[in-house]
Amino acid sequence: MEHGKRRVIIENVQPRVDGGLYPAKRTVGERVDVTAAIYGDGHDHIRAEVLYKKEGAESWSLTELNQTFNDEWHASFYVIEKGEYLFTVQAWIDHFDTWYDGFKKKANAKVDVKVELMEGALLLRTLGKTNKDIISLARKLEDTQKYQAAVDLVLSDEFADVVHQNPLRENETKLGYEITIQVEHTKANYSAWYEFFPRSASLESGKHGTFADCIRLLPRISAMGFDVLYFPPIHPIGKINRKGKNNNVKSLPGEPGSPWAIGSDEGGHKSVLPALGTLSDFKKLVDEAKKQGIDVAMDIAFQCAPDHPYVSEHPEWFKQRPDGSIQYAENPPKKYQDIYPFNFETDTWKELWEELKSVFLFWMEQGITIFRIDNPHTKPIPFWHWVIAEVQKVNPDVIFLSEAFTRPKIMASLAKVGFTQSYTYFTWRVSKQELIDYVNDLVYGPSRNYFRPNFWPNTPDILPFHLQNQNENSFILRYALAATLSSNYGVYGPSYEFYENTPVEGKEEYFNSEKYEIRQYDWKRTNRMTDIMSILNKIRKENPALQSTWNIQFCPIENSQLVAYLKATDDLSNIILVVVNLDSTRGQSGYVQLPKARLKLGDKINVKLHDLITDEYFTWIQEWNYVDLSPYKMPFHLFKLEIHESNL
Amino acid sequence: MEHGKRRVIIENVQPRVDGGLYPAKRTVGERVDVTAAIYGDGHDHIRAEVLYKKEGAESWSLTELNQTFNDEWHASFYVIEKGEYLFTVQAWIDHFDTWYDGFKKKANAKVDVKVELMEGALLLRTLGKTNKDIISLARKLEDTQKYQAAVDLVLSDEFADVVHQNPLRENETKLGYEITIQVEHTKANYSAWYEFFPRSASLESGKHGTFADCIRLLPRISAMGFDVLYFPPIHPIGKINRKGKNNNVKSLPGEPGSPWAIGSDEGGHKSVLPALGTLSDFKKLVDEAKKQGIDVAMDIAFQCAPDHPYVSEHPEWFKQRPDGSIQYAENPPKKYQDIYPFNFETDTWKELWEELKSVFLFWMEQGITIFRIDNPHTKPIPFWHWVIAEVQKVNPDVIFLSEAFTRPKIMASLAKVGFTQSYTYFTWRVSKQELIDYVNDLVYGPSRNYFRPNFWPNTPDILPFHLQNQNENSFILRYALAATLSSNYGVYGPSYEFYENTPVEGKEEYFNSEKYEIRQYDWKRTNRMTDIMSILNKIRKENPALQSTWNIQFCPIENSQLVAYLKATDDLSNIILVVVNLDSTRGQSGYVQLPKARLKLGDKINVKLHDLITDEYFTWIQEWNYVDLSPYKMPFHLFKLEIHESNL
Repeated sequence: MEHGKRRVIIENVQPRVDGGLYPAKRTVGERVDVTAAIYGDGHDHIRAEVLYKKEGAESWSLTELNQTFNDEWHASFYVIEKGEYLFTVQAWIDHFDTWYDGFKKKANAKVDVKVELMEGALLLRTLGKTNKDIISLARKLEDTQKYQAAVDLVLSDEFADVVHQNPLRENETKLGYEITIQVEHTKANYSAWYEFFPRSASLESGKHGTFADCIRLLPRISAMGFDVLYFPPIHPIGKINRKGKNNNVKSLPGEPGSPWAIGSDEGGHKSVLPALGTLSDFKKLVDEAKKQGIDVAMDIAFQCAPDHPYVSEHPEWFKQRPDGSIQYAENPPKKYQDIYPFNFETDTWKELWEELKSVFLFWMEQGITIFRIDNPHTKPIPFWHWVIAEVQKVNPDVIFLSEAFTRPKIMASLAKVGFTQSYTYFTWRVSKQELIDYVNDLVYGPSRNYFRPNFWPNTPDILPFHLQNQNENSFILRYALAATLSSNYGVYGPSYEFYENTPVEGKEEYFNSEKYEIRQYDWKRTNRMTDIMSILNKIRKENPALQSTWNIQFCPIENSQLVAYLKATDDLSNIILVVVNLDSTRGQSGYVQLPKARLKLGDKINVKLHDLITDEYFTWIQEWNYVDLSPYKMPFHLFKLEIHESNL
Repeated sequence: MEHGKRRVIIENVQPRVDGGLYPAKRTVGERVDVTAAIYGDGHDHIRAEVLYKKEGAESWSLTELNQTFNDEWHASFYVIEKGEYLFTVQAWIDHFDTWYDGFKKKANAKVDVKVELMEGALLLRTLGKTNKDIISLARKLEDTQKYQAAVDLVLSDEFADVVHQNPLRENETKLGYEITIQVEHTKANYSAWYEFFPRSASLESGKHGTFADCIRLLPRISAMGFDVLYFPPIHPIGKINRKGKNNNVKSLPGEPGSPWAIGSDEGGHKSVLPALGTLSDFKKLVDEAKKQGIDVAMDIAFQCAPDHPYVSEHPEWFKQRPDGSIQYAENPPKKYQDIYPFNFETDTWKELWEELKSVFLFWMEQGITIFRIDNPHTKPIPFWHWVIAEVQKVNPDVIFLSEAFTRPKIMASLAKVGFTQSYTYFTWRVSKQELIDYVNDLVYGPSRNYFRPNFWPNTPDILPFHLQNQNENSFILRYALAATLSSNYGVYGPSYEFYENTPVEGKEEYFNSEKYEIRQYDWKRTNRMTDIMSILNKIRKENPALQSTWNIQFCPIENSQLVAYLKATDDLSNIILVVVNLDSTRGQSGYVQLPKARLKLGDKINVKLHDLITDEYFTWIQEWNYVDLSPYKMPFHLFKLEIHESNL
């Protein structure tokens, strides 16, 4: 036991989520930045390295940690395959490096270094063992006849390389455990979602839309560049206590009800609403979408209408009240009589968990690989931890989107236990400072390691105040923010692109909400918004810098209505600069600062900018540059930057 | 296995140092504030409690956690005995509390609550079991003949008490581990140190001081109110390569050398310098000091002069150079030829560790219980972890003061692995903002749980720039800051009280440093400084608020040269307000704000202030109050506050 010789301490190794309780998440090709506090006693030099490998691999890869500030160290590596990666850290006092540093200081101070040369020779022989080159260096240091030549040799650049390339590992402190990185497929990190209600898909007025109608809409969505098509629940809708138009407690005959009131005598979570078509029609839609580059996402809402088959088949999964009735959902004193929640504290919770798991497996058999989970924060977090792991055992590529708009720790927890992507507070971050603070928090805060944001400017539940009764510029700028700030984003489509902006008075809800009625859209129409959607999604596909949320850097810009941010690949092969005018009615101008360090710009600046939306070209030759955005022309610039050779 | 029913998550329980690697520290009588993130799914009500006990105790004490903000919870308890305490946390969905909250909302909204009354009765029966009072309440809720009486009963204050006092524990989530609090004796937290060189203790000019001379000085130090007397090393001083006056590389015959160059033919770390007296003289001094309420602290510097007996007896504990010489201390290109460091990477490290441990045990046998450790950051941190634990197995009350003025993480690490108290950066925190930031960091940052500061305005090594060539007001204000900001403080005494202010040009070192020569002090003299030391130490003894570092709250005061802070006991039975003028030459005045919330002041303020230094009285009847400090009168106020009854 030689632990007494180990003098280095390693602390606070990151990324590590909740002390190792959960894995840190990455997607294929992403960088892992490892940081740690590493220090020892005295002034001896420390060297440290990260050891990492794909789980099951035989050997570790090594990468050196470098000291940054205040005994913090940093290294990075890339994860290139799906699955679990492991990493750990080791560090040691490097006597060769320590000797070398002391030697240089003494030799430069013209102190006699005869003994130091002998020490160096011994260290080289320890290091070299059978390495002829290193032993040959040792001999040169030992040659007392050639003192000055030996000194010069140690002071040479070649010798510096020898020191750097030959760590003298002795008495290493090892972390003592391995940290897991879960590496998922790229789509977990980069996706564009389009939501519509299939029952509103008909081109004919007054008709209930069908899966066949949806198939006819696929080319439109594909042309707009979306790659996830997300439907509200497609199951039979409860007939008992069905809600009417505008959330009326009673429905009129013929009203379709809310798709989230799931289940009737026509079936439950594994059935489709007959008015939409058959299961086979649905599979055909899923297959056809896939051919056009679109994954269909299912909405999973684990709750039941009073006439859901589960209620009679498994009354033990619901809470019985003393009067024999079943507990409906409530937020006292409000009652939601069209919904029965599951009682997750039932004695038969294991059977309930298994049945809910089987719902996922059923739809995966129909070709579904993406699930948007409705209100996951009202079901137990340990259930999600279990069911997501179970489902991903069958197919690790399945994506779960958490529709939780709730308190921060609960949203974080759902992400930690396995949700692939999460809805966010972006919907309500409006001002320049709010946007900067929120995005920096997501990208540079601890949640970066488990919480993948998916930015939505609207949803069927939310018409935010700042879009109510607003002009099309507002819709365009919020869309541009969502699609460029976050590599995952989505939009509740037809309502958004046709600028629906009328709320229920005083609420952030749509008037005549599609949740309670069938809507008629002019699906053949295109407009400024659909044009921008098409071009922006195309730009996202062509520019890898926009395929990551984690590469953002906000740029100072001297106008409180203008927000500017740079997104670039690590190697700077693709650089995007976005400038958005948050004022939807007036032109705004200001000076934006190029991030010189990040772009490795020297004093002579020569940057070509191509606005990929308007196809305009600019050349910037200064650090601060003037921009002027008229919202009626276009509320944002989306520049692709090319840095002229002379800068680099 | 019922884990599926457990819906509550408990995270980030504090105080926990480095994920439980080290205990959190407290002293007898101190409060432990427990915080945790606790949340579940849905809107059900959570209840949570801390379980704590002295290690070995049979049963746990319980205290309820209360929600503060953003799913954070808080509770506190007091540790009343020395030794280890354990605590853990559990939390659960309380269906009784959830039902009660829903009931109130529904009843207040005049909704029919017949079924709710039945539910409440069932919950009461679950809770009550054999408790007659609760079963009787259940019966009243079940009495359908008296509906309104039952509703009123549930809405009554008495029923609120029943709910609060009867948590319905079901499906508890338990933390799964226990967290350790190490509780030490009070002196670890509250002490006043006085340092002098015993060789300068003689009252006769030109004579080497002795332990007998030190005994004659004890009444002076005791009268000034210090309770730790700390001596630089008292061991034989190396004769080889001995340093001369002002750190001269060569000493003249008769020069005494630096006490930190330990060991000669007269002995080593377990011997005393013959010129000071015998071991028996030293024991007599230690015993006599104890009688006068003073603990003698030894300086332990683990390094050797070239003629230390260890060097010949254990050459394997030192680093041999290729030319056969022993490696002296160096900071290239500087060399310190009077000092040999131990080679802690020796193959015989176990024997070395054991020998160094035996040094502590030897001095403990002579009655020593306090050690000031010289430069602990140049010896391996794992060694300190081991040796402090070993020593405290013999006597858990032994105090170790870490003399590390180095990088923050290393200072923190030494405290984590066991040092009782630590030197700090206070010595260089001068401006108002620096003082506030630093003290808030120590008291409210994570290091509060392991790092006990000991504030020194000077040391034999450090005459800080801001005291160089300064007037006595500067010395007084820095002393007052040290003694009132921190409950542990110390001063390198005679030099400080006689205002020695001449540095080595351009350095923070004393000119004619006592480290290298014997000094003559006029030990019979007293002055303004010694008077202030006496009265301030007396005030510290009489006011428990000044016996803790952890109860400070800085008060806004509208002058950048004035700093104000309140220190109060938890029960407000003792309240001290200090206002210091940082300007040593000019009077400064401004308005200071009383912290109304902390002092539980209402709108009618009536606070009596007694300046315990100047014996002046004031009455404040407003939140903001005028203070005016002339440094030549007194650079600080030290008010004792009495809050007039009508405020409370």
